[in-house]
Amino acid sequence: MAGNTIGTLFRVTTFGESHGKALGAVVDGCPPGLTLTEEYIQEELEKRRPGKAKGETPRKEADKVEILSGVFEGVTTGTPIALVIYNIDPQSSAYEPLREVFRPGHADFTYFMKYGIRDHRGGGRASGRETVARVAAGAVAKRVLEEYGIEVHAYTINLGGVEAKERDLNFIYQNRLFCPDPEAYKRMLQKIEETAKEGDTLGGIVEILAKNVPAGLGEPVFDKLSADLAKALCSVGAIKGLEIGAGFRVATLKGSQNNDPISPRGFLKNDAGGMLGGISSGQDLILRVAVKPIPSHRLPQRTVNLRKEEVEIQVGGRHDLSAIPRIVPVLSAMARIVLVDHLLRQLALLAFRARLAFPDFFAP
Amino acid sequence: MAGNTIGTLFRVTTFGESHGKALGAVVDGCPPGLTLTEEYIQEELEKRRPGKAKGETPRKEADKVEILSGVFEGVTTGTPIALVIYNIDPQSSAYEPLREVFRPGHADFTYFMKYGIRDHRGGGRASGRETVARVAAGAVAKRVLEEYGIEVHAYTINLGGVEAKERDLNFIYQNRLFCPDPEAYKRMLQKIEETAKEGDTLGGIVEILAKNVPAGLGEPVFDKLSADLAKALCSVGAIKGLEIGAGFRVATLKGSQNNDPISPRGFLKNDAGGMLGGISSGQDLILRVAVKPIPSHRLPQRTVNLRKEEVEIQVGGRHDLSAIPRIVPVLSAMARIVLVDHLLRQLALLAFRARLAFPDFFAP
Amino acid sequence: MAGNTIGTLFRVTTFGESHGKALGAVVDGCPPGLTLTEEYIQEELEKRRPGKAKGETPRKEADKVEILSGVFEGVTTGTPIALVIYNIDPQSSAYEPLREVFRPGHADFTYFMKYGIRDHRGGGRASGRETVARVAAGAVAKRVLEEYGIEVHAYTINLGGVEAKERDLNFIYQNRLFCPDPEAYKRMLQKIEETAKEGDTLGGIVEILAKNVPAGLGEPVFDKLSADLAKALCSVGAIKGLEIGAGFRVATLKGSQNNDPISPRGFLKNDAGGMLGGISSGQDLILRVAVKPIPSHRLPQRTVNLRKEEVEIQVGGRHDLSAIPRIVPVLSAMARIVLVDHLLRQLALLAFRARLAFPDFFAP
Amino acid sequence: MAGNTIGTLFRVTTFGESHGKALGAVVDGCPPGLTLTEEYIQEELEKRRPGKAKGETPRKEADKVEILSGVFEGVTTGTPIALVIYNIDPQSSAYEPLREVFRPGHADFTYFMKYGIRDHRGGGRASGRETVARVAAGAVAKRVLEEYGIEVHAYTINLGGVEAKERDLNFIYQNRLFCPDPEAYKRMLQKIEETAKEGDTLGGIVEILAKNVPAGLGEPVFDKLSADLAKALCSVGAIKGLEIGAGFRVATLKGSQNNDPISPRGFLKNDAGGMLGGISSGQDLILRVAVKPIPSHRLPQRTVNLRKEEVEIQVGGRHDLSAIPRIVPVLSAMARIVLVDHLLRQLALLAFRARLAFPDFFAP
Repeated sequence: MAGNTIGTLFRVTTFGESHGKALGAVVDGCPPGLTLTEEYIQEELEKRRPGKAKGETPRKEADKVEILSGVFEGVTTGTPIALVIYNIDPQSSAYEPLREVFRPGHADFTYFMKYGIRDHRGGGRASGRETVARVAAGAVAKRVLEEYGIEVHAYTINLGGVEAKERDLNFIYQNRLFCPDPEAYKRMLQKIEETAKEGDTLGGIVEILAKNVPAGLGEPVFDKLSADLAKALCSVGAIKGLEIGAGFRVATLKGSQNNDPISPRGFLKNDAGGMLGGISSGQDLILRVAVKPIPSHRLPQRTVNLRKEEVEIQVGGRHDLSAIPRIVPVLSAMARIVLVDHLLRQLALLAFRARLAFPDFFAP
Repeated sequence: MAGNTIGTLFRVTTFGESHGKALGAVVDGCPPGLTLTEEYIQEELEKRRPGKAKGETPRKEADKVEILSGVFEGVTTGTPIALVIYNIDPQSSAYEPLREVFRPGHADFTYFMKYGIRDHRGGGRASGRETVARVAAGAVAKRVLEEYGIEVHAYTINLGGVEAKERDLNFIYQNRLFCPDPEAYKRMLQKIEETAKEGDTLGGIVEILAKNVPAGLGEPVFDKLSADLAKALCSVGAIKGLEIGAGFRVATLKGSQNNDPISPRGFLKNDAGGMLGGISSGQDLILRVAVKPIPSHRLPQRTVNLRKEEVEIQVGGRHDLSAIPRIVPVLSAMARIVLVDHLLRQLALLAFRARLAFPDFFAP
Repeated sequence: MAGNTIGTLFRVTTFGESHGKALGAVVDGCPPGLTLTEEYIQEELEKRRPGKAKGETPRKEADKVEILSGVFEGVTTGTPIALVIYNIDPQSSAYEPLREVFRPGHADFTYFMKYGIRDHRGGGRASGRETVARVAAGAVAKRVLEEYGIEVHAYTINLGGVEAKERDLNFIYQNRLFCPDPEAYKRMLQKIEETAKEGDTLGGIVEILAKNVPAGLGEPVFDKLSADLAKALCSVGAIKGLEIGAGFRVATLKGSQNNDPISPRGFLKNDAGGMLGGISSGQDLILRVAVKPIPSHRLPQRTVNLRKEEVEIQVGGRHDLSAIPRIVPVLSAMARIVLVDHLLRQLALLAFRARLAFPDFFAP
Repeated sequence: MAGNTIGTLFRVTTFGESHGKALGAVVDGCPPGLTLTEEYIQEELEKRRPGKAKGETPRKEADKVEILSGVFEGVTTGTPIALVIYNIDPQSSAYEPLREVFRPGHADFTYFMKYGIRDHRGGGRASGRETVARVAAGAVAKRVLEEYGIEVHAYTINLGGVEAKERDLNFIYQNRLFCPDPEAYKRMLQKIEETAKEGDTLGGIVEILAKNVPAGLGEPVFDKLSADLAKALCSVGAIKGLEIGAGFRVATLKGSQNNDPISPRGFLKNDAGGMLGGISSGQDLILRVAVKPIPSHRLPQRTVNLRKEEVEIQVGGRHDLSAIPRIVPVLSAMARIVLVDHLLRQLALLAFRARLAFPDFFAP
């Protein structure tokens, strides 16, 4: 049943299907007193808009966000912020031939098994389009984190096997693939072109970096910051792997190699990825996720229909060639949502430790 | 603040520190009518007991579980099942020299930054010992899953770089490392012996396999089965990476390679790891986690103390050489806890779809 | 922080302010396969619309609900149902003189103390208008309960001291006050007329009756059905008291009088209000709530402004004379939301007790 | 399924049956750095111990609490505090005749309908004995509230119709009934004596008063302070009614009477019970609950057994004559648990509003 809400103090609930009337989010727990505009949120949405780069769907998604509540005279009030993005160009008829067919690699089969019914239009709720709501909510989280100087960056470090070596944070926002390495970027574009010709699709790896995260975030033993980030990132469709800091490399490291020594000026390296015991250490948070290739490629595929009959399909429609780059701002959005939640949770603890006084209007 | 509860309908809360009086768990939401004994739970606890294999701590942990509630005449009643394991051999004095020192790789620093105070004895709540409560709770989950024929296995597929090629499910329970490959097992033992001599520690990779999981488990878009498994597994100390199905391999796979074709007899392969759109497909669930080397090795380490003074430490005490094998039953426990929760959540949906009738005592 | 979500398996999140752009709700966990239309929800909204009866605000609230998601081809899909009601006639300027004044009996002061900021227009989120979202969500709950034949009725049994003696369930829906007693109804209208002349406002008592609720709903010891109903009903603005069954009468009853004897044909009376130990017994649920008089009356009131200066105010604007009758459908909505949540929670338990089978698509 | 956890940041999970091995609670989210001893908690438990006053069960309940975790060197660490109270004198054989009988007024029938099984010994989990865990957890909450000078008092204002007129807070703790009125106290004792002779039992009314609660606690629109208090108090067995401030009296009050005027020195009266819009106003919180008479009286009662056969029972065993006074410290415990949770939730908000700085160990 219900599973569309995430967070404890900063709580995001999303809704909407690929070809439904609208998608959106309710952001509950945003602190009051912050300036927030539709333009601010729109800027984040633009980052995941298609039609900007080669290899991305030509579908026109205006993705105009409206703030329905929670902001008064340009300032957040502490009440829930509802965000809505109307769908304006669904063209659902293209999906008619797929009404009774389970596309391999998609959630068609599992949604049908779960609910006994399914919205076949563009994957319904299981579509990548669902993530527009995450990005909108994540923009609110971004606004909150700004107040504490916390920055989150996500960038493509591998696309279809092409690896980025450099980590040029400025270059990320100057190219269509959110690639931090100018040289790798060129090879990634080439890879996309080749794969597009084949009619096939690509996977990749995205790294998430959070800077200026204070030490102390995370609530052991289940709501560790690492665990909540893992959940939030793995809840994004297409994610099949996650690494924190050294990640799978730890399997071959020895303790003497893996431990990050500490000096009076701080940690001397960061293989931990900024978290120890699931709590932030004050170092940068570093995570990576593996993104699977988009299942909707143009080559013939074997599958079955609702009557369990064998069918061969070739998926047409307007599809991206890779979830990257559109998934990149989604991942930073999810990381931000988790960070705000844990920031507030730790602020409660710190405020108590400081015996923070309550305002008293009638005090003499 | 609070972060020691996991689950929605099947909810586990744990407590306890490494050198405190006791550890334990409250399992809330266990269905009534199931036989359950202390012996049954004890059997799972034995799997994570130290002192059985070379490379494991000689500390005597009797780890005797007591059921305090929720079971009447050997049968669960539907009320919360409290499980307690008293600590009988803490020897905390060994930790006295570490009272003011932050051990690298441990959570000493982050706990101190979070809480402003810390229980230095054996890591306190951040100790691997905390997981005894997870295993106890996981045993209850195991009992629940039995009723649906769902099996979870976890096993070591990499220890310090030594990889298991085979997946002999029977052999897993016949060796001290939960290794599914007799040949690799021998080399792993050898690796342990070498590393012990060096005074160093090892990491590795554990695979988690769930069989007979029905299709339909998982609640998009945040409480996906994949996301909840990611959280539960990554909440275990020492986990730095997670893979679902093909995992990081997807970065270099094309869509035509990665998609699992479907035939009238089922899926033709399982690169998805048994989940599509975060919902179980009826195939085996396959996940892998990366386990970091235990930070308490015997070589000298650079760090600081509470007064920010540089110190060099050599950690003595009774320590394992690797979190493997003891972490292995912890990981299957966490997977089981998540599976029961999602089983029950989906049962609510299915029961409604079936308009399942309520018992009516006074019906004529 | 976040506090606008209620429920575990059936989860309602609401948003919106009195004079904001829109109000609405996200209903997460609605079972799939149910027909649901905007007309169906609209019908419930009409019940709380003002402008129908004397003593109600002349404000034109079209309150047209739109379904934004979760319904495909007229049928619920199991994904979140977003409902939105745009505000079309706010006239916020009327509230300009109140921008810096705390109206007695309203939440002006407490919102200011909590958030340090406030939306003064019509009470913002603290307005009775917020309940339109509850009623919309409650309509979805009503649709779910229909499948199990569960009916919820709410009706006015006291208005400003005028008591209803009869409980004519048909008459409820034939009069503007949801009064179950034709004779009392007339006297209530008279009371309203008198009080309107005085420029004052009225309180009252509403009874909530749920029929055909199966035995077994409620999750001790905190999520008892009684406790969750208490929370849901008391979360409605203006509610200052709650009774279950005999209510405050139990203070003077003896055990031999209060206990409901049981016969082979069922309970012989219902002083318990249909719940024992917080679990439904199969009898009718009966609860009552006390509704305070609307604080916005037309007589002069003493208060202070933001600068702590004494001011006298006379609240103009378009206001109801009593929260009754508009609060009546809000209360049945809240009861329904709780009942669906507990219905689904108990269905999970019953389905497990029955070892309900999962659908198996590939079964031979 | 799961329903034994309450709270968001301060989260209490309880367990245990009347005649099981032990009862207890896990308190998760208690701030670190507070002194806390078993003696401190024991003092609260003594308040609900039977055998002190006439009319209370002669059963010997030592009710010795043990702290199993979360406290190190006498100070809370921020990790979960597990509290356990072993049952030492269950005498379950007295309940053997009731194994197959549903006692009227008890939860025997509803537990059976829910779970299909039941622990007949002393009501199992539905026993008033369950509340010992609430009081233990509430003692931790009391310790937290002390730091902010918040006091909660609960006292008997009506026992079997005998009303307390006075509110002498000192006298409360000087008599066995927690009665705030010396004169009424005498008449209550007399009433108990009379009723004991009849073999019958008594109900009553308890008032809960919280002093020094800062303005701003409560999270609209569902997690209002009023709503969460209503849930917490109504989750206690035997509670059939709840009032906030003026309570049911509001039905006959006019707005001009009910509103509490505000002056530069504060509110001029407190009919609101200290909450407006569900948020604390800085005034005293005042609530009242109706307590039903204990169902186990000694007069013959009509009921049925598991085979739906008519039976007459006379309940023997060791029973109280009224849930009062033992329920009184339970009610203050529940109020305290809610207050701590909301204190911490509001501290998160205030800390953000103040941009509270995080500690930075490595700052130069």
